Amino acid sequence: MPTVRLISEEEATGKVKAVFDDIKTTRGIDFVPNIWRALAVNPDHLELTWHKLKHAMEPGKLDKLTKEIIALAVSITNGCAYCINSHTTAVKKLGLDNEALGELVAVVDVFNGTNRIAEAYQIEPDILPPEE
Amino acid sequence: MPTVRLISEEEATGKVKAVFDDIKTTRGIDFVPNIWRALAVNPDHLELTWHKLKHAMEPGKLDKLTKEIIALAVSITNGCAYCINSHTTAVKKLGLDNEALGELVAVVDVFNGTNRIAEAYQIEPDILPPEE
Amino acid sequence: MPTVRLISEEEATGKVKAVFDDIKTTRGIDFVPNIWRALAVNPDHLELTWHKLKHAMEPGKLDKLTKEIIALAVSITNGCAYCINSHTTAVKKLGLDNEALGELVAVVDVFNGTNRIAEAYQIEPDILPPEE
Amino acid sequence: MPTVRLISEEEATGKVKAVFDDIKTTRGIDFVPNIWRALAVNPDHLELTWHKLKHAMEPGKLDKLTKEIIALAVSITNGCAYCINSHTTAVKKLGLDNEALGELVAVVDVFNGTNRIAEAYQIEPDILPPEE
Amino acid sequence: MPTVRLISEEEATGKVKAVFDDIKTTRGIDFVPNIWRALAVNPDHLELTWHKLKHAMEPGKLDKLTKEIIALAVSITNGCAYCINSHTTAVKKLGLDNEALGELVAVVDVFNGTNRIAEAYQIEPDILPPEE
Amino acid sequence: MPTVRLISEEEATGKVKAVFDDIKTTRGIDFVPNIWRALAVNPDHLELTWHKLKHAMEPGKLDKLTKEIIALAVSITNGCAYCINSHTTAVKKLGLDNEALGELVAVVDVFNGTNRIAEAYQIEPDILPPEE
Repeated sequence: MPTVRLISEEEATGKVKAVFDDIKTTRGIDFVPNIWRALAVNPDHLELTWHKLKHAMEPGKLDKLTKEIIALAVSITNGCAYCINSHTTAVKKLGLDNEALGELVAVVDVFNGTNRIAEAYQIEPDILPPEE
Repeated sequence: MPTVRLISEEEATGKVKAVFDDIKTTRGIDFVPNIWRALAVNPDHLELTWHKLKHAMEPGKLDKLTKEIIALAVSITNGCAYCINSHTTAVKKLGLDNEALGELVAVVDVFNGTNRIAEAYQIEPDILPPEE
Repeated sequence: MPTVRLISEEEATGKVKAVFDDIKTTRGIDFVPNIWRALAVNPDHLELTWHKLKHAMEPGKLDKLTKEIIALAVSITNGCAYCINSHTTAVKKLGLDNEALGELVAVVDVFNGTNRIAEAYQIEPDILPPEE
Repeated sequence: MPTVRLISEEEATGKVKAVFDDIKTTRGIDFVPNIWRALAVNPDHLELTWHKLKHAMEPGKLDKLTKEIIALAVSITNGCAYCINSHTTAVKKLGLDNEALGELVAVVDVFNGTNRIAEAYQIEPDILPPEE
Repeated sequence: MPTVRLISEEEATGKVKAVFDDIKTTRGIDFVPNIWRALAVNPDHLELTWHKLKHAMEPGKLDKLTKEIIALAVSITNGCAYCINSHTTAVKKLGLDNEALGELVAVVDVFNGTNRIAEAYQIEPDILPPEE
Repeated sequence: MPTVRLISEEEATGKVKAVFDDIKTTRGIDFVPNIWRALAVNPDHLELTWHKLKHAMEPGKLDKLTKEIIALAVSITNGCAYCINSHTTAVKKLGLDNEALGELVAVVDVFNGTNRIAEAYQIEPDILPPEE
């Protein structure tokens, strides 16, 4: 159960309403996801978080799907249930099927394991990545 | 400093040598990265880990670069220095420039933050992802 | 569902009863929180954990609220639902309102993000903190 | 070693220079910390991150020192060396002495432990925090 | 709720059926645990994961119970509810009683705490482990 | 570099000296490991941490080596370099050779991976562990 009361769309005014409207328009959805309704407890943080996230998710050198895949990999690694549900929905909406999801999970599985091998044996870097 | 002695290519025999050779061929490199030289302490684990990792990284529905991007996102989230260096080298070799790396880091930054917002307020899922 | 049977206050005897009583007195509550009822499976660990925690939470150079804020920040970062609920209740009881909680969450959000930026680029320390 | 080239203050122009200047003014320091020099690889992300962080750290219901204490507790929990150095320097500059730092560490120690007790026994919440 | 449909034993064919059968035989159980039914979305990953896990859990220098204890310690540290339930069941089946479980939890508690003390003060290694 | 000055054995007095002496006697070593020298900044926390840790590590239903193995598994999962070095030294001193260490690492690798599979697919528990 949430630890703060979620602000409904009806209650939202000013900065909160503006962000709620932008979320629905940008995402093409007709409701405001719970996380944003909770964040409305701190309207400035809501606005700054939405703008930073919105910018980070805009297609650039990496496309939208690749960015959602990264978000899902991070959420799985952190074990955040809300986030895993949300980004799984997002990657599927962008066309990733269960077979591709299975590949994503395989990579997340493998490297969470090998990360610990590298730590266990305190392995030192082979070659540093080339600077640009 | 590593907590086990790294096996050199000269010392490798049998199962270990076979894996070392396969790593160099598959990756197109002329040395065996330190993590595999440490894993040689347990030849069966070395072989099973390499085969699982090799299979997980083969291009399928997701291409090679997307898979290395996932590996890097996981490694950053876990804070594994060896792994970050290794996968940064890999994504750059596959054509990701610093601008794209900057986008990847922005997404990892944003969702490590929002994962904690979702936890902080104990937010419940909006909609479950559609089953296939 | 808990993986061990929680000991009720009625069943508690000896060392367990003494700790249960001290918890209720120290915290000014009329029930024993579930975590302590589970810990009663190992009475020595229960006692040592309670004494260490009780001492760590006593006001010193840092006051009680600041210490509960730290406990909540740690619990959010780890994503521990029981702990988040417990420490959110505690900070509110000590006078933190939702607006202040929103500020706390904003800081936890920001630094879980920037922690990953520092790892992503393998940034080295600027200046070490002055020794005393 | 950083995986990207750090931008020097001399090289900075436009958006990057503006952020660098604002960092030095806001913090009252005469150099730009390494993390911001690395972030300059992605000027938009640099600007959005700085603005969000700057806003989150402004004194509000919680004062500046409490916010730096939260940042340090998060960084210790994540094991981020750069971040621990940076926020230890910050809390000391704001007046926290080693004795108070020792209290902070004691709380971080205790709750990283008890977080795992709660997980180990899959303890369910006692009482939910009061909604406002 | 799972984000993919769990494959039932009746539906399983080929590689998936072979792994399902091997799981039941190896573990001496008459059902296929949910995680393997989910993994069936990616039959190759299912097979490689099962083989690697099966090999890692075979008694060698470390016996079966010690290996399940390690698996439980890892799962508690990561806060993975499914995994904690599964490995708690396993260690109890192998003879660990609640008193011994309480000792395991005490060690996991203590070292999740001291890990953060070591990070907080950026402690450097005393002596490196002897190489063999 | 440590963020606090490490107290030397020569400087130690009172409670700190008593703990330092007990550490050397209990462990059969002739120096005080760095983590305890740092903890001396907060003598009460030093004493409570040492007593809790000492008790948790005493052989009971689980023997000393099994307890050190758990400590190492936790430290690898958290990626704490100081702790990994310290507990690797400890398990080797208690007789674990590199082959057994390789088995331990294999189990830690496998379950850090499968923990993420369980999270990725939001798998629900099969059967809860039997209550005692």
